[in-house]
Amino acid sequence: MRFRTEGEFHMMIVMSPQATAAEVADVVTAVEAQGFTAHRSDGKESTVIGAVGIVSGEYDPRNFEVLPGVARVVRLSAAYKLASRHFKPEDTVVQIGKVAIGGPGVVLMAGPCTIESREQVEAIAPLVKAAGATILRGGAFKPRTSPYSFQGMGEEGLRYIREAADKHGLLVVSEVMDRTQIPMMLGYVDILQVGARNMQNFDLLKDLGKVKRPVLLKRGMSATLEELLLSAEYILAGGNRDVILCERGIRTFERAMRNTFDIAAIPVLKTMSHLPVVADPSHALGIRDKVAPAARAAVAAGADGLIIEVHNQPEKALCDGAQSLLPEQIMRLSKDLDAIARVIGRTLAA
Amino acid sequence: MRFRTEGEFHMMIVMSPQATAAEVADVVTAVEAQGFTAHRSDGKESTVIGAVGIVSGEYDPRNFEVLPGVARVVRLSAAYKLASRHFKPEDTVVQIGKVAIGGPGVVLMAGPCTIESREQVEAIAPLVKAAGATILRGGAFKPRTSPYSFQGMGEEGLRYIREAADKHGLLVVSEVMDRTQIPMMLGYVDILQVGARNMQNFDLLKDLGKVKRPVLLKRGMSATLEELLLSAEYILAGGNRDVILCERGIRTFERAMRNTFDIAAIPVLKTMSHLPVVADPSHALGIRDKVAPAARAAVAAGADGLIIEVHNQPEKALCDGAQSLLPEQIMRLSKDLDAIARVIGRTLAA
Amino acid sequence: MRFRTEGEFHMMIVMSPQATAAEVADVVTAVEAQGFTAHRSDGKESTVIGAVGIVSGEYDPRNFEVLPGVARVVRLSAAYKLASRHFKPEDTVVQIGKVAIGGPGVVLMAGPCTIESREQVEAIAPLVKAAGATILRGGAFKPRTSPYSFQGMGEEGLRYIREAADKHGLLVVSEVMDRTQIPMMLGYVDILQVGARNMQNFDLLKDLGKVKRPVLLKRGMSATLEELLLSAEYILAGGNRDVILCERGIRTFERAMRNTFDIAAIPVLKTMSHLPVVADPSHALGIRDKVAPAARAAVAAGADGLIIEVHNQPEKALCDGAQSLLPEQIMRLSKDLDAIARVIGRTLAA
Amino acid sequence: MRFRTEGEFHMMIVMSPQATAAEVADVVTAVEAQGFTAHRSDGKESTVIGAVGIVSGEYDPRNFEVLPGVARVVRLSAAYKLASRHFKPEDTVVQIGKVAIGGPGVVLMAGPCTIESREQVEAIAPLVKAAGATILRGGAFKPRTSPYSFQGMGEEGLRYIREAADKHGLLVVSEVMDRTQIPMMLGYVDILQVGARNMQNFDLLKDLGKVKRPVLLKRGMSATLEELLLSAEYILAGGNRDVILCERGIRTFERAMRNTFDIAAIPVLKTMSHLPVVADPSHALGIRDKVAPAARAAVAAGADGLIIEVHNQPEKALCDGAQSLLPEQIMRLSKDLDAIARVIGRTLAA
Repeated sequence: MRFRTEGEFHMMIVMSPQATAAEVADVVTAVEAQGFTAHRSDGKESTVIGAVGIVSGEYDPRNFEVLPGVARVVRLSAAYKLASRHFKPEDTVVQIGKVAIGGPGVVLMAGPCTIESREQVEAIAPLVKAAGATILRGGAFKPRTSPYSFQGMGEEGLRYIREAADKHGLLVVSEVMDRTQIPMMLGYVDILQVGARNMQNFDLLKDLGKVKRPVLLKRGMSATLEELLLSAEYILAGGNRDVILCERGIRTFERAMRNTFDIAAIPVLKTMSHLPVVADPSHALGIRDKVAPAARAAVAAGADGLIIEVHNQPEKALCDGAQSLLPEQIMRLSKDLDAIARVIGRTLAA
Repeated sequence: MRFRTEGEFHMMIVMSPQATAAEVADVVTAVEAQGFTAHRSDGKESTVIGAVGIVSGEYDPRNFEVLPGVARVVRLSAAYKLASRHFKPEDTVVQIGKVAIGGPGVVLMAGPCTIESREQVEAIAPLVKAAGATILRGGAFKPRTSPYSFQGMGEEGLRYIREAADKHGLLVVSEVMDRTQIPMMLGYVDILQVGARNMQNFDLLKDLGKVKRPVLLKRGMSATLEELLLSAEYILAGGNRDVILCERGIRTFERAMRNTFDIAAIPVLKTMSHLPVVADPSHALGIRDKVAPAARAAVAAGADGLIIEVHNQPEKALCDGAQSLLPEQIMRLSKDLDAIARVIGRTLAA
Repeated sequence: MRFRTEGEFHMMIVMSPQATAAEVADVVTAVEAQGFTAHRSDGKESTVIGAVGIVSGEYDPRNFEVLPGVARVVRLSAAYKLASRHFKPEDTVVQIGKVAIGGPGVVLMAGPCTIESREQVEAIAPLVKAAGATILRGGAFKPRTSPYSFQGMGEEGLRYIREAADKHGLLVVSEVMDRTQIPMMLGYVDILQVGARNMQNFDLLKDLGKVKRPVLLKRGMSATLEELLLSAEYILAGGNRDVILCERGIRTFERAMRNTFDIAAIPVLKTMSHLPVVADPSHALGIRDKVAPAARAAVAAGADGLIIEVHNQPEKALCDGAQSLLPEQIMRLSKDLDAIARVIGRTLAA
Repeated sequence: MRFRTEGEFHMMIVMSPQATAAEVADVVTAVEAQGFTAHRSDGKESTVIGAVGIVSGEYDPRNFEVLPGVARVVRLSAAYKLASRHFKPEDTVVQIGKVAIGGPGVVLMAGPCTIESREQVEAIAPLVKAAGATILRGGAFKPRTSPYSFQGMGEEGLRYIREAADKHGLLVVSEVMDRTQIPMMLGYVDILQVGARNMQNFDLLKDLGKVKRPVLLKRGMSATLEELLLSAEYILAGGNRDVILCERGIRTFERAMRNTFDIAAIPVLKTMSHLPVVADPSHALGIRDKVAPAARAAVAAGADGLIIEVHNQPEKALCDGAQSLLPEQIMRLSKDLDAIARVIGRTLAA
């Protein structure tokens, strides 16, 4: 809740109707002591003090909330800047070889939840290629709620997914779980994915700011859109401008689905930020027969891409088989997604 | 949390690993005393007692949770029955004159948030008709969070909306806020809308069960899908089988939008229930330029209809002008919705 | 989201860094056209426009959010006034005979969830009296999620609770579910309770503003504290100044308990408002053995009273037996509550 | 959502009323194929299949949910075991020198949010000692939402807090943000704290399972109690049995406070688990004058300890000054906490 403004900071301090003239004056003095210009707006009942300035140091708006006579403090400046569309109005397009994420084409990323064997990824890669995917997904390190779950194949799995992707002309996206894995992963993947549970693993984000490789940043289960953009800001501030945002469902009181897929986050993020926005309906829904409606909805709402779990033998999957599409389902879905994309002037990118 | 089973009830009682044999026996006795058949499943570490039976009386599963040795109790039966697809597998189609809600056509309901004057509804009715709507919406009684807000025109407003609808061949949907308003409203409207804040106004629901007029039941801001279906059950149990469910956004930690539009509720409700499901993207989003993406998404996800706010002069609207579409926006949106509906084998109903 | 300011209204309009000088000027013009005084605060990167004024009409802050060049609008004024501590700094004490709610004594209200028979309330009344309660609670009309649950005894039940209370020198609090029940209930109860599901039943609130009888207003399951105070404002604005606020748990993602008991709401409400604040740990927790810790916590946090379910034979209760305390439990709890109250300079009111 | 049962697993599969006899038989076959014993409970309307067994492999209950005729699947076994009170009924007491956490004494941990300088911790240490604290808290690595915030002093800060603690006979608790910091931190701290954002940083948890040093595990902002216990299970399963659970507020729709302090989590966790439970009211509330009521409530609800931010000059604090208590406030609070602890048969541990 503290911010170091690299740029400009606006804040409003609402005084209580009972505040004395001396209390108002003290707050103005405190505001100016922090290097702001103060603007008083005196109503008949109460006073509001605006503060604006370029501040090189740091402070916490709540510091004013504890001063005598203050009713509340409202921060008006967004805490993120590099991620904001106000500061970069044109869309960011992340270009990886021939694949452009954030342009007119809607990008399909598909593959198994977890890499289970060389045979498995080799079987799935041509299926997702045939369905129009340009990027192969698959996890080598799995963050599991329970310590008794399968934890992934590690580097060996990355070798298999890279081989399978190369054979079929696909790119690779895979999750990095810990900063120590980054150098090794750079040898295998085209996009480094940050999982929802790591969205605020700030050490990891800082290190990702220093690499020259696109990052797919998933929204945390209980992260606001502003917090997602602040996490993107960590990466951008380090010098890496290729950040792809991903909506994957949030946690709410409703437990009929695994998560609540926040469809409106897609158009709202595209207003707040210039970064591409993709959606992960598989994790949001958690059960196969709801993935297709959610995927269609995401494209209709303006998503720049989708990341979908597909398995050739979901009943034997080591992870999340129940939410993986069958090969024939992804073929059918892909056709529908292209048709919906065309309604809003886009296509599924081939 | 109590249920009177008209049909069959299943429940599982999980005993603690420390439960003594006597405690297990006592629970079995208690279960049978309530008229259930008990099934013991003895593991090496703990015992689970299943209970199944037709019970004419009433009871609360928590009554077993307080017995010695019980770890937890899980209710397996859905608390609703008439609303359940298990008990009525085929879709319910609500037919009103030529308009069918829940059939292959996607129904568009549109109009102002609030009826403000005869001139206003007469100006808006032909616009929404031209956009393909078959039902005119507009509120005469408004539930307002603040007592200082405009509270609606009442019966006079209903007279105006009925006139305007008749002139343009439209049906009318409007909100009933209190059970005392029902008889009067039956003289004006084709569909009685129950607002989100009234979803658990059980006296109102009971009275709506006794009328022969379709009810559009909005999901409460913090209602689970199961609770929405239990509220529908109140109406169905009274004898009124024409209930239309409506997703309109839920309250979550995210406040960047007015509500979180729970897009997945649409396909999930259609699995749980045979009732038609429509969506209200205007209230879910709360700001005009996000309504169209959410409306497209709802149709892509399988909604049977949409209810959308439209205003000819939104900047002068007495209520929710900021979330009302402009006439040219609804025209454009309507074309897109029809195109998306066709992708999944439906059309916008004319 | 609309407000008619009876008093003064403050709002801040944050312009986008890309806003042109003409867009800024247009917003200032629009603000002044609505009768506000505008204050410009021009930073190097962006402009913030403050608006303050006494406005007799109505408007919606979102109307400015849709103007070209506007990034966002922040309302600074609270939407409630009569309920606000800013406008009435001294505590409101609701006095009913010898019982004062909101004074130094912590008031205990206790009794069964539902009135089941004359015998039942007559058995419970002396028990709660002995435990130090001054007010007898019991429901005659029950809002039930399922239509198949027991719906209450109605007026007959009120007659029994009144008799039992009078015999033991207790006051009566009971829930009013519908505006049509108010006149009848005035014949039996000392405090009219509004349940969580009715917190935004605005017709009911308006009618309660016109009676001369204290109202215990429960927080809705998903209501913010501001919304609770706006609902109180409906009653206060009608002329009834005896409103008692009640925290009873909110709905969150956590389902291990029935609701999440928002303990901090107690001190926060007492800062926002001058109205007394009581807590209902029975509904918040939903299971007997957690009620006592929550009740102790509420008194430690500064609650002015507690409303607790007690049953002499909870295993036979028709409603919520599992969350009702046993007679010996309320006796013990009452002693602990008095001891905790004394730590913060209060006592349990006798 | 997958579980490898080290022990026993119970699950119930509810069949649809429309399920055919063949579908029921197929599910029974599938259950047995996974190594479970199946128990059929045939009602007149529908069938429930129970499954119990010791399974050495892995599986996901959702795999059964996608089978034809299945309505839903309910897992009855808790996914954690070592953390469960069912498997270890007696309380775990974490003993560090003379300090026992989880015994009859309520332990006070206090100190600054962030270590800012040698002078600062040396000034604060005697103040918290005088207030009855036995453990000094202070952050050297800070997880900050914004990249532009102060990120902590690192190892230098740990040296200062160790020195100050030793001089005043206090223990040290400080947050570890990344697995790479563990070996260094073992040289300075008595308790390794895992922050809310890292509660599901599984690589970190695994490494903490291998050290011989108590871990204070904070509940994630949107973590259920079950997930908190699963994260504890990661540490316990590695061999480290000294885990202290910490409630610090969850994220809900209510934003009047920084977080919603889930007071009931304290008694509920103590029922679910044998591990000690402490509370962090500073982060839960986020503003100084609400910390004391929440701290009193936590002790009244049965917390085994409190971790509270204190600063000698909060207006100059580099982090969270607004939520830090003043020295005179912690002195007063400490007396109240001891008095409340005595009401429930405990004391503040000296």
